[in-house]
Amino acid sequence: MLEKLKEVACKNKMYRSYIGLGYHSCHIPLTIVRNMLENPGWITQYTPYQAELSQGRLTGLLNYQTMCADMTGLDIANASLLDEGTAAAEAMGLAKRHTKRSIFYVDEKCHPHTIALVKTRADPIDVEVRVMPHSEMDFSGDDIAGVLFQYPNTDGSVDDFTKLVQNAKKHKTITACATDLMALVLLTPPGEFGVDIALGSSQRFGTAPGYGGPHAAFFAVRDYLKRQMPGRIVGVTKDSAGNPALRLSLQTREQHIRREKATSNICTSQALLANLSAMYAVYHGPKGLHHIARRIHMATVILAQGIKNSGLELQNKDQFFDTIKVQCNGHRADILQRAEEMEINFRHHDDGCVGIALDETVEEKDLNDLLWVMGSKQTAAEIAQEIAQSPPSTGVIDGQLARRSEILSHEVFNSYHAETAIVRYMKMLENKDLSLVHSMIPLGSCTMKLNSTSELAPISWPEFNSLHPFAPVEQAQGYTELFNELEKDLCEITGYDKFSFQPNSGAQGEFAGLMSIRAYQQSIDQGHRNVCLIPTSAHGTNPASAQMAGMSVKAVKVTNSGSIDFADLEKKVNKYKDRLGAIMVTYPSTNGIFDEGIKELCDMVHHFGGQVYLDGANMNAQVGLCRPGDYGSDVSHLNLHKTFCIPHGGGGPGMGPIGVKSHLAPFLPTHDVIPVPGSNQAFGSVSAAPWGSSSILPISYAYIKMMGARGLRKASELAILNANYMMKRLENNYSILYKGTNGFVAHEFILDTREFKKDGIEAIDIAKRLQDFGFHAPTVSWPVTNTLMVEPTESEDKAEMDRYCDALLHIRSEIQDIQDGRIAAKDSAIKNAPHTAATVMSADWDRAYTREQAVYPLSFVRPDTKFWPSVGRVDDVFGDQNLKCSCPPVETYCSDSDAEPIYQQDQQA
Amino acid sequence: MLEKLKEVACKNKMYRSYIGLGYHSCHIPLTIVRNMLENPGWITQYTPYQAELSQGRLTGLLNYQTMCADMTGLDIANASLLDEGTAAAEAMGLAKRHTKRSIFYVDEKCHPHTIALVKTRADPIDVEVRVMPHSEMDFSGDDIAGVLFQYPNTDGSVDDFTKLVQNAKKHKTITACATDLMALVLLTPPGEFGVDIALGSSQRFGTAPGYGGPHAAFFAVRDYLKRQMPGRIVGVTKDSAGNPALRLSLQTREQHIRREKATSNICTSQALLANLSAMYAVYHGPKGLHHIARRIHMATVILAQGIKNSGLELQNKDQFFDTIKVQCNGHRADILQRAEEMEINFRHHDDGCVGIALDETVEEKDLNDLLWVMGSKQTAAEIAQEIAQSPPSTGVIDGQLARRSEILSHEVFNSYHAETAIVRYMKMLENKDLSLVHSMIPLGSCTMKLNSTSELAPISWPEFNSLHPFAPVEQAQGYTELFNELEKDLCEITGYDKFSFQPNSGAQGEFAGLMSIRAYQQSIDQGHRNVCLIPTSAHGTNPASAQMAGMSVKAVKVTNSGSIDFADLEKKVNKYKDRLGAIMVTYPSTNGIFDEGIKELCDMVHHFGGQVYLDGANMNAQVGLCRPGDYGSDVSHLNLHKTFCIPHGGGGPGMGPIGVKSHLAPFLPTHDVIPVPGSNQAFGSVSAAPWGSSSILPISYAYIKMMGARGLRKASELAILNANYMMKRLENNYSILYKGTNGFVAHEFILDTREFKKDGIEAIDIAKRLQDFGFHAPTVSWPVTNTLMVEPTESEDKAEMDRYCDALLHIRSEIQDIQDGRIAAKDSAIKNAPHTAATVMSADWDRAYTREQAVYPLSFVRPDTKFWPSVGRVDDVFGDQNLKCSCPPVETYCSDSDAEPIYQQDQQA
Repeated sequence: MLEKLKEVACKNKMYRSYIGLGYHSCHIPLTIVRNMLENPGWITQYTPYQAELSQGRLTGLLNYQTMCADMTGLDIANASLLDEGTAAAEAMGLAKRHTKRSIFYVDEKCHPHTIALVKTRADPIDVEVRVMPHSEMDFSGDDIAGVLFQYPNTDGSVDDFTKLVQNAKKHKTITACATDLMALVLLTPPGEFGVDIALGSSQRFGTAPGYGGPHAAFFAVRDYLKRQMPGRIVGVTKDSAGNPALRLSLQTREQHIRREKATSNICTSQALLANLSAMYAVYHGPKGLHHIARRIHMATVILAQGIKNSGLELQNKDQFFDTIKVQCNGHRADILQRAEEMEINFRHHDDGCVGIALDETVEEKDLNDLLWVMGSKQTAAEIAQEIAQSPPSTGVIDGQLARRSEILSHEVFNSYHAETAIVRYMKMLENKDLSLVHSMIPLGSCTMKLNSTSELAPISWPEFNSLHPFAPVEQAQGYTELFNELEKDLCEITGYDKFSFQPNSGAQGEFAGLMSIRAYQQSIDQGHRNVCLIPTSAHGTNPASAQMAGMSVKAVKVTNSGSIDFADLEKKVNKYKDRLGAIMVTYPSTNGIFDEGIKELCDMVHHFGGQVYLDGANMNAQVGLCRPGDYGSDVSHLNLHKTFCIPHGGGGPGMGPIGVKSHLAPFLPTHDVIPVPGSNQAFGSVSAAPWGSSSILPISYAYIKMMGARGLRKASELAILNANYMMKRLENNYSILYKGTNGFVAHEFILDTREFKKDGIEAIDIAKRLQDFGFHAPTVSWPVTNTLMVEPTESEDKAEMDRYCDALLHIRSEIQDIQDGRIAAKDSAIKNAPHTAATVMSADWDRAYTREQAVYPLSFVRPDTKFWPSVGRVDDVFGDQNLKCSCPPVETYCSDSDAEPIYQQDQQA
Repeated sequence: MLEKLKEVACKNKMYRSYIGLGYHSCHIPLTIVRNMLENPGWITQYTPYQAELSQGRLTGLLNYQTMCADMTGLDIANASLLDEGTAAAEAMGLAKRHTKRSIFYVDEKCHPHTIALVKTRADPIDVEVRVMPHSEMDFSGDDIAGVLFQYPNTDGSVDDFTKLVQNAKKHKTITACATDLMALVLLTPPGEFGVDIALGSSQRFGTAPGYGGPHAAFFAVRDYLKRQMPGRIVGVTKDSAGNPALRLSLQTREQHIRREKATSNICTSQALLANLSAMYAVYHGPKGLHHIARRIHMATVILAQGIKNSGLELQNKDQFFDTIKVQCNGHRADILQRAEEMEINFRHHDDGCVGIALDETVEEKDLNDLLWVMGSKQTAAEIAQEIAQSPPSTGVIDGQLARRSEILSHEVFNSYHAETAIVRYMKMLENKDLSLVHSMIPLGSCTMKLNSTSELAPISWPEFNSLHPFAPVEQAQGYTELFNELEKDLCEITGYDKFSFQPNSGAQGEFAGLMSIRAYQQSIDQGHRNVCLIPTSAHGTNPASAQMAGMSVKAVKVTNSGSIDFADLEKKVNKYKDRLGAIMVTYPSTNGIFDEGIKELCDMVHHFGGQVYLDGANMNAQVGLCRPGDYGSDVSHLNLHKTFCIPHGGGGPGMGPIGVKSHLAPFLPTHDVIPVPGSNQAFGSVSAAPWGSSSILPISYAYIKMMGARGLRKASELAILNANYMMKRLENNYSILYKGTNGFVAHEFILDTREFKKDGIEAIDIAKRLQDFGFHAPTVSWPVTNTLMVEPTESEDKAEMDRYCDALLHIRSEIQDIQDGRIAAKDSAIKNAPHTAATVMSADWDRAYTREQAVYPLSFVRPDTKFWPSVGRVDDVFGDQNLKCSCPPVETYCSDSDAEPIYQQDQQA
C-alpha cells in the first residue's frame, strides 16, 4: 500500500510556491514532528471533555489562546477554528447576532476565497455582504453590523485602519480584522488600534500547507464579546482540592445544548494543529520569532528593491511585510516562463500583476532565483549591500505601524528554547493525557478506533504536505488521483455517485449538504421548500446547520424504544408538505439501534417533495453491510475521523466530505481561486481550500485499501458484535436504554443511569470514577441526559472490553453500597472521583473507603502502570463564572488555595 | 545539513541484496519504528543500572533473553552482544576458560568474516584455531577446547550436527553453534541436539542491515555455563516490598570489577536493538513468525526449483532454509549481467558459485526477477503450481531436522499482535523508564547529552539503513563520502592522521588500538614489547582489553589528588623499559581533572619505546580545546555515543572508532569480505562488518556539521563550566574528592560520600534517594568505591542543574538529621528509597517521615508530573543467588510475596 501510495504522491510536483493567500511554507521543528505529530500519545486522544485526564493538551491549547490573544493584542482567543475563511464567516455571524443588523462590509482587499466564503454563509441567514474599498465604507447609517478587512491585505500592503476602526466604533459596528501572526511579530497588533475581532490562520506557525490543511485558525475578541465567541475555549478553573485546573469553558453555548438556537455549528476545533502552532511559538519564543519575522521581511525588502532596480513597479508602495504585488509591464510572459523553468509558483492577479509572498524557508539561493526570474541582474547579496548603505523605509520595522509592544512575554514562551527542554515539556504534557495508547476510549457516536502507523506515515511525506492549495492543479496530479480513487471507493461503500472533499468537519458537511439540497431545489423552482425535519434524538449540529442554511427546523418525535415515531413523522410530513425541504436522520440512530423503517422514511419524504440528508456519523456500523444510497438517502457526510481512521487529534482535525446522488452533484461546493471540477451550479464554498484538509485524506485512502472489501465488512460486523458483547455483560446490572426489536443493539448502546439519581449518583460521577481505573468515560449525557453511551469499536480486543466491563460492574457494586445504605453518596469513592496521587498520599486520609479502594479498585489497576489523573474533579461552575482563558502566572501553581471544592455536573456530549 | 546529507545518502544505490552472510532485509513494523526507534523515550535512557526506574527496557531485554533461549532451545541467553562475529569470538574465549585447553575447531562452512574475527581474537590469547570441514574433526585427544559450526551453514545448507555434538561432548569439548533465529522457527533448535552455546545475529528480527549495523547478537548457553557467559544479563529478583523486579544480574563478572581478570572486555550491549528485535517477536508472535519463516522458505524452494528446472545445479542438495549456492556452469557472466540490469546483488563465492539468500521482503515480483536473472523461463506462479503437484523434499518443513517443539509459548509473545495492543505495551514500558525526556542524567564518564532529532532523522532514511554491508563498495559511494568526511573532521578534532570505523564499541576500540600498536611493533621487530601500563584509576575495560590483546598489565599509582603518580610512572617505565609496549591513559583523567603532566607522560613513554593509547572517553572535555595527537598520543578511541551524540539507547548501541598517528595507519583493522582501504598490514578484524555500525555514523556527522568549529569548542567550554558550577554549589556540603591545582575540575567531579559510611549511609543510598526527586543517579562507586561522579554536560540549563543540586543538598540535610541523631539511618527516607506509589499509599504508614517527605521532598517534585519508580529497591543478592533470566509466568506479578525485603549495596559503575 505504501509503495503504491508513494507512486501516487510522487505525481505531485514540489515547486517552490510563493503564492501566499494565507498559505506559506514553514520549517516545522523536527522534534515537534516526531514527538507530537508522529506520536500516538499526542494524536489519539479525544476532545478534552474529561478534563482531569486531559491537562496536557488543555495546557497546549491554553498556550495557543494566550499566544493568539497576545499577538493580536486582544483580550481573549478561542482554541482554534477550522480555517481563516470560516473564521471570517463566524465573525460575520457574530456581528449580526451582536448588533442585530444585517449589512456586513468586506474590504475588497481581503483574500478572494475569504470573501466567497463569507458570502456563502451570509446569504441563507439574510445578511447582505457589501464588498468595496475600505476608503468608501460609510457607517453613518448606524445599520452596518460589521466590517471585515485584512491586515496586511491580500496584495501584501499594510494599510493603517485606525481611522476606519474609530469611525466604525462610533456607529457601534463590529470591526473584524483578518491578519497574519508572523506579520504581527513586527506590526502593531489590531487590538492596539481598536479592533473587536482578529482572526486568521496559524498555519505558518509550525504546520504544513498540506494542499489546504488541516491547520488551525485563530479567533480573538475583546472581552465584551467573549460569551458570544464561536468554538471551543479552554479556561482555568480549580479542582476539588482547590488547585488550578484547565477545562473547556462555556460549553453551554454549544450546539448540542442550544440546537437551532446555537451560535454556530462549530463542533470540531483543530486541537492538534493548534497545539503544534503553540509549541512552535513555545520553542522559538519571542526572540526566535523576531528573528524569523525580520528575516522574512528583510528578504522581501531585498526582493522588492531588486525588482524596483530592474525597472518594474510594485503596487505596495513601501508598506509590506512579506508579500508584494508586481506590475509586470510587458515582461509578464518572460517572468512566468522563467518561473516555470525554476519550478517556482507565483500568485497570478487578475489584473496581470504577479504576487510574491516569502516565508521562513526562503534561503539566499531562493532569493537569487527569484531575482533572476523577475529579471534582476543583481544578486541578493549585492542588493543587501546597497540597502545597508541606504536603507529604504519599509514602514514595518521602524515606521508608524511598527509594533512597540512586547510579544509573548509569558514564561511559557521563554523557557523551552533548547531541544532538551522542549522535548521534556512535550513529554510532560503528553503524559498527562489519557489516550488510545493507554486504554480503550469507548465513546458512543465518536468512534475512537485504531489509527495505524502505516495509515499515518504518508501524511509526513513532503509530496503530500508541502503543496500549496492554490498551486496549479497540473502540479497536483497525485492529489487528483488520490481524490478520484478515494471518491470511487467511498461511492462504492455508500452507494452515492459523487463526493465533495471540501467540508473539513462533519458539521461543515451537514451545512454543505443542506446547501446543495437548497441549490438543487431552487434550480427546479422549489426554492420555497425550507422546512427541515429533524428527530429529537439528532446530534445538535443537525439543527444548528439547518438554521445556518436558512431552514426552519421542525422536530420529529422519537418513541420510547428510541426509534423515530412514524406516526409523528407522517403528521409532520403532511403538515409541511408544501414547504418540506429535507429530513436529517441518523442511521443507525444516535440511540444505537437500526431503525427498521429507514427505507419507508426515505420514500415518504421523497413522496412529499423533500430530500433525505442521512447523517453519516454512524456509517461505521454500515460499511460493507448496507448503503445509504441504496435505501433512499440523497446526501450524507462521512466523518473520516471516525469511520475512516483519521485520528481525533485531541479534538481535531476532522474531515466531513459529503456524498450525493447524481442529481445533487452539480450543486456541490466549489472554490473561488481553484474551481472544483463538476460543481457547475455550486451554491458557494464552505472551506478556505478547495478540497478541505487534503493532506489527511491519505489516511482514509490507506485504511480502505488495506482493509479491502472483506476487511471493511468484517470491521462493521466486529464493531456491532463488540457492542453487543459488552451490552450483554452489563445488562443484568445496568439498564440498557434502547434495544432493537430482537434484543440487540447496533455498534453502540446507552447505559441508563438516571435511576441512580435518587441515590445521589449521576452519569458524570460514574464517568469520573472510571478515571480511577485508568479509563476514559463513554459519552456522557448524550443523546440522553444523565446516561452513558458506550461504543467499543472493532479495534478493541476481548480482554480490554472485559476490563472495562469489570470496571463498570465494580462501580455498580459501589452504587449498590450506597443504595443499601452502607455508605453515603457524598462519602463514596464515586462522588469523590477521580483521585489524584496527591489526594491519596495525604497523611490525613479520613475517607470512608481506603486509599487502595480509591486508586487500585481492581487487580488490573497496578501501581507500576497506573495512569494518574493530574488534577482532581474540575469545578465547572467556578470556571464559567470566573472566565480565565490565558496562561495564569506561574505562581498560581505554587499557591495553596483554600477554596472549598464545588462539585458540579458536567455539561458534556 | 539535512539537505546536504540527503545528497550524500542518495549516492548510495539501493540494489536488492540477496547476499546473506548474516545480513538480511527486513520489514520493521512502522509502529515499532515510530514508537521505539524514533522515540526519545526509548533511545535516550542510560544502561539500566538504576533498576527501579528502568523496568521498561529491562522487561524488553528479558523478553529478548527469553526469545533467544526459547528459539535456540537453550537454558539461558544474555541481553545481547555486539555482532555475530564477536559473539563467536566470545564463545571461543569461553571454551578456553572453561576447558583450560587451547585448540579451537572452526568448521570451514562458517561465515568467512566470523572465522577471521575468531582468529584475530584467538591469536593474542594463545588459542590455536583450526579451520576444517566438520567431518574431519577429531576430539579424541581430549585437548580441544571447543568447536564452532554454523547451522544453516554459510552456503545455506542445513547439516545434521547431532553426532558431532555427541562426539565432542564425550571429550568435554564445548560445542558452539552459530545459527539464525528465522531458520530456527522451522528447524530443530541447537539445544535439542546437545549444543552448549548458540549464537548469532538477531538483525533480521526487526532491525535494518544498516550497512553493517548496529544490531544485536544473541548468545545462549546451557545452565552450567551461565556464570561464565559474557555480556549483560537481565535477571528477575524481588524488590523491597517482595514484589518481582528486574535488574542486571551477575555484574561482579564484569571488567570494572575484575579488570585484567575479566572474562571479556564487553561493556556495551546492543540494548536498543535487542529491544527492537524482542518487540518484533512480541508483535508477530509464534504464528506470525511461522508465517514469515514458511513464506521465506517456500520462496526459496520455488527459486531453487526454477533454477534446477533451468539446468543449473545447487550445492545444497535438498537441505536449505533460505539460502542456496548455485553452480553457474558457463552462465556466470550472463547471470551477473542480468543481475546488474535488475539491480540485484548476489554473493560471489570464491569457487565461482552464486549465493542467494531470501528474506521476508521478497515478493512474487522479486522472485520472478530472480528467476529471470538465473535464466529460468518459468514464473514463480508456474513453479509453485508444479511444486503443489509434486512437492520436493526440503528436509526443513517436514524432514528429520524440522522443529517439533513449540516456539515462544510465553504469554508475552501471544498477547500483542494488534497495533492497538503493541502500542499500549510499548508505551507502558516506555513510561516505566526514566530517560533524558524526564530530567538530566549527569552520569560521570558516560556523558548523557542531547541527541537531537535533526541528527537522528537520517538514520531512518532507506539510503542509509537498507544497504547490505557486503554490497559492492561502488554502490556505497554515499557511505564512502560520509566516512571520509567524518574521518577528516575527527582527524582535525583529535590531531590524528587516520581513523578506523570498524570498532563498534569503546572497548572494541581499545582492543583494536592495542592490536594496531602490537602489529606496528612487530613490524619493527619490537614484538616482544608486551607490557601495558595502566593507572589504577583507569576504566576497567582498559586492563581487560590489554589482556585480550595478549599484554601484561602493570598498574601505575595515582596520587592523593587524583593525578597519575609520576614517581611511580618513572619507576615502572624504567623497570619495564625493555618490554614496555604501551601506556593506556585517560585525559582528562577518570577522576575528572586535567593531568598537568600529560605531555611529559607521553614523551617519557615514547622515550622508552612505548606507544601511548589515550582513552578518548573524556574527549568531550577536549574538543576544540586541545588534541591528543598534538600532545603526544599515538592512538585513541572515541566514544561516538558519548562525545558525538549517538544516543545511549538504554545501554547500546555505541560506536568506538579509533584514530591513529600515521605510523599506525597501515595496521588498522580490515575485513575478510570487504577489505578496508589503507589497512595493508592489518592485524585482523574486530567487527563482523567492515565499518562497524555504519548506519549510526550520520548522527555524529550531523552533530559536527551543525556545531561547527566554534560550536564544538563552546560545547566543551560549557561542559566544563557546568561541572564547575555544580561543584561550587555543592562543595560546602559535600567533599569534592579531586580538584586541579587551581581549585577547578574538568567536565565532571566526584562527590566523596565515604565519610557518611559511619552514619550508615552509602553512595548507593543517595543514588536511590535521588529517584524520589525524579532524578537518575550520577555514576555510583566509580572510579572510586562509595562515591558519586557527576557530569552535567553542556546540554543542561542552569534551572535543571539547580534542581539537581537542590536535591543533593536536601539529601545532605537528611544525612545531617541522621548525623545529629534526629532519625536513625535505617528509618530514614534515604535508606528506604526509592518510594513507589504503592508504598506511600498503603494505609499502615508507620515511617519516621511523612508520605510527602518521601515522595514530594522539594516543591519542584509536583504530584501532577511526578515520575514514579515502578518497583522498590531491588534485591541484588537475592537476584544473583536465585538467577532467573527469562520471563516469569504472568501469575508471579499477581502473587503477594511475603518475603522480607533485603537491602544490599549495589555493585555498579
